[in-house]
Amino acid sequence: MSQLNSIKVGLLGFGVVGSGTWRVLARNAQEIARRAGRRIEIVRIATRTPSKAISVVGQLVPVSNDMMGLVNDPSIDVVVELIGGTTLARELVLKAIENGKHVVTANKALLAMHGNEIFKAASEKHVTVAFEAAVAGGIPIIKAMREGLTANRIQWLAGIINGTTNFILTEMREKGLPFADVLKQAQALGYAEADPTFDIEGVDAAHKLTLLASIAFGIPVQFDKVYVEGISRLAPEDVVAAGRLGYRIKLLGIAKHREDGVELRVHPCLVPQDKLIANVEGAMNAVVVKGDAVGETLYYGAGAGSEPTASAVVADLVDVARLQTADPEHRVPPLAFQADALADYPILPIEDTITSYYLRLHVEDRPGVMADIARILADGNISINSMIQDPQDDGASIIFLIHKAREGNVVEAIQKIESLSFVKSKVTFIRLEELS
Amino acid sequence: MSQLNSIKVGLLGFGVVGSGTWRVLARNAQEIARRAGRRIEIVRIATRTPSKAISVVGQLVPVSNDMMGLVNDPSIDVVVELIGGTTLARELVLKAIENGKHVVTANKALLAMHGNEIFKAASEKHVTVAFEAAVAGGIPIIKAMREGLTANRIQWLAGIINGTTNFILTEMREKGLPFADVLKQAQALGYAEADPTFDIEGVDAAHKLTLLASIAFGIPVQFDKVYVEGISRLAPEDVVAAGRLGYRIKLLGIAKHREDGVELRVHPCLVPQDKLIANVEGAMNAVVVKGDAVGETLYYGAGAGSEPTASAVVADLVDVARLQTADPEHRVPPLAFQADALADYPILPIEDTITSYYLRLHVEDRPGVMADIARILADGNISINSMIQDPQDDGASIIFLIHKAREGNVVEAIQKIESLSFVKSKVTFIRLEELS
Repeated sequence: MSQLNSIKVGLLGFGVVGSGTWRVLARNAQEIARRAGRRIEIVRIATRTPSKAISVVGQLVPVSNDMMGLVNDPSIDVVVELIGGTTLARELVLKAIENGKHVVTANKALLAMHGNEIFKAASEKHVTVAFEAAVAGGIPIIKAMREGLTANRIQWLAGIINGTTNFILTEMREKGLPFADVLKQAQALGYAEADPTFDIEGVDAAHKLTLLASIAFGIPVQFDKVYVEGISRLAPEDVVAAGRLGYRIKLLGIAKHREDGVELRVHPCLVPQDKLIANVEGAMNAVVVKGDAVGETLYYGAGAGSEPTASAVVADLVDVARLQTADPEHRVPPLAFQADALADYPILPIEDTITSYYLRLHVEDRPGVMADIARILADGNISINSMIQDPQDDGASIIFLIHKAREGNVVEAIQKIESLSFVKSKVTFIRLEELS
Repeated sequence: MSQLNSIKVGLLGFGVVGSGTWRVLARNAQEIARRAGRRIEIVRIATRTPSKAISVVGQLVPVSNDMMGLVNDPSIDVVVELIGGTTLARELVLKAIENGKHVVTANKALLAMHGNEIFKAASEKHVTVAFEAAVAGGIPIIKAMREGLTANRIQWLAGIINGTTNFILTEMREKGLPFADVLKQAQALGYAEADPTFDIEGVDAAHKLTLLASIAFGIPVQFDKVYVEGISRLAPEDVVAAGRLGYRIKLLGIAKHREDGVELRVHPCLVPQDKLIANVEGAMNAVVVKGDAVGETLYYGAGAGSEPTASAVVADLVDVARLQTADPEHRVPPLAFQADALADYPILPIEDTITSYYLRLHVEDRPGVMADIARILADGNISINSMIQDPQDDGASIIFLIHKAREGNVVEAIQKIESLSFVKSKVTFIRLEELS
């Protein structure tokens, strides 16, 4: 074991994940070498503020802000990119590949937007681009799907892949608070950033979903085709009503393989509360994957944080250490499918989604209301699963759960319902997935 | 992609899993080849009753009962062993290895008992022995631990790794029925075998735990040192009482790495009902793994059945197809750790287990009872977490939850309590894990 050379790693970025990677590699060096058969050694660090890194690593490793110098350093086998962003990170990653180095990255935005270019370059240079840390932190979901479920035609996947929004939804439900209050609290606790847009509007989840869908179905990364809707417009009364009906509201990233194409969407969603994923609370992540042979499997864990994410970075480094000697044509391809075997299934527009729905209406309380609404739904080929009505000071609130329908039809019916004279405000409309 | 040779597989056994493997490989041939970069082809089948296999595969592949002939067939790259048992299976697997063939097996008993010998032989011959299907069916738990969590010092794992017993426990709880009745029902439904001993007495779970613990901690397989206790003596009243206290009873396989050694045990266990694993119902499996960097992760899915298990067999075949060209010193080692880096941590006797406990006593209802019991517990350095007392026709039932204590001390205290004149029957004693 000890005769094998160590793997020489250059670390770009020394923030939350970078410092965690350093710490985990140092603390568990022996355990990791017992597994990998060789040591994994950070030999050079480049970061915007070297002083911070130096205060941790001391004189053990040279630290500078010369990122391109690191990428061009011939003594380095693997570049770990943890600086984030999509401009400089893209340049550095492409340069590392050009220099024949393997790359490990946690950068979901980079791969969701420039993945096709990066994976192509890596394939031409016979190097690996590993990115377990880019999706769901420490949960080995990329590996599970890419290597553990290779026997399967993946039918769909659905994931809680953003911890910030799951924390907010959990607090809204448990404490009955409105979105804005909980967001402030999440910011105070460090669960949400000062500018929380990427998280709360679903963009971060959409980056991750883009990668998961590619791996599941063997399609190129296509971030621009993901339908994205966040949680900022969710009302506490819908969270409560969902609970009364036996559901919880989660922000899900959903990818479904249908005969006629692929659904790719991120949005708040009612989920039956007896499903495990409905019980994933706080900042935790979980992904359900449905394969035709294996059935439903679920993967759960911390989706962010210093050491959970570092856990995935280091696992990728061990993979590189173990497998870099394999004939490149036989290594595990980054998107699970061989580069020349990707499919161009059409990505379906959101109007073509087929799922169930929760509708909440505010109406005047007078005879004929229900009949008119039911008629519009029936005309749109939409059938009602259940209904509850609550009297209110100024009329009534009606909630419908409707069976699977084409979204375009549902939206059209809602427009007709909103034009009825006794309907007093916009119809609230939330998708519902039975996940079975 | 198409230029690469196909992988030639010889299939030993054509029962539930063997026929599922055939079916999945046939149905998803294209999907699998898109991932593996080459076709995976069953070229020969040997089974005890060839007629059954022939009725499925027809003339496509030669079928016989000549198992040793298959293992000696030079045209075969990989032998898939699905015949079960530990005598003939051991011979065939060792012979396949001797012949330089990779082996894929679902045989947990074989590996739990003869794993050290088999892995050593494979290492000497530079071939792979893959066994994802041996633990938790289609859940890629071996891969997750062996490759996905390599950054971590694994601290403990706890799994529902036997579907039969989880089905029985779910029915006992939901329907309030005694063990024997539910067992009969499970047998009628095909969830339990005619001789259910291996499942209900925890032996099957212990086989799987043996393998999981080796992979988690880098120790040899040591089935003979696992403490094993089944569910056949569980009373319905304890299932109900656990629910009142906020717990569910599950049969868990638990492996803990302590400073002074390793706990390896299979037994019924109270688990907080707000933990995801407590909500794994019916015949499903789940494993929680706690790593020092990643924290808790959980893996859930079908733990048995034809195609879920075949899903794991085929995933192993794809791994072999992808990685067989890697330098053997760099491939993923079967027990996650390099063969020369296994540790000989002592396996602790059950008396040295440290956990929490549920105790139920049947006593006469008179003054001083509680004082005497509390004194005995205190003398044994055992502290009480909570207590509930219920009057009964002939005295009272008292339930204690006690804080973490050394099991030897608890057993000693119980013996003293049982000798008290007002204690009317044996003390019921169930371990409790907070899993945090």
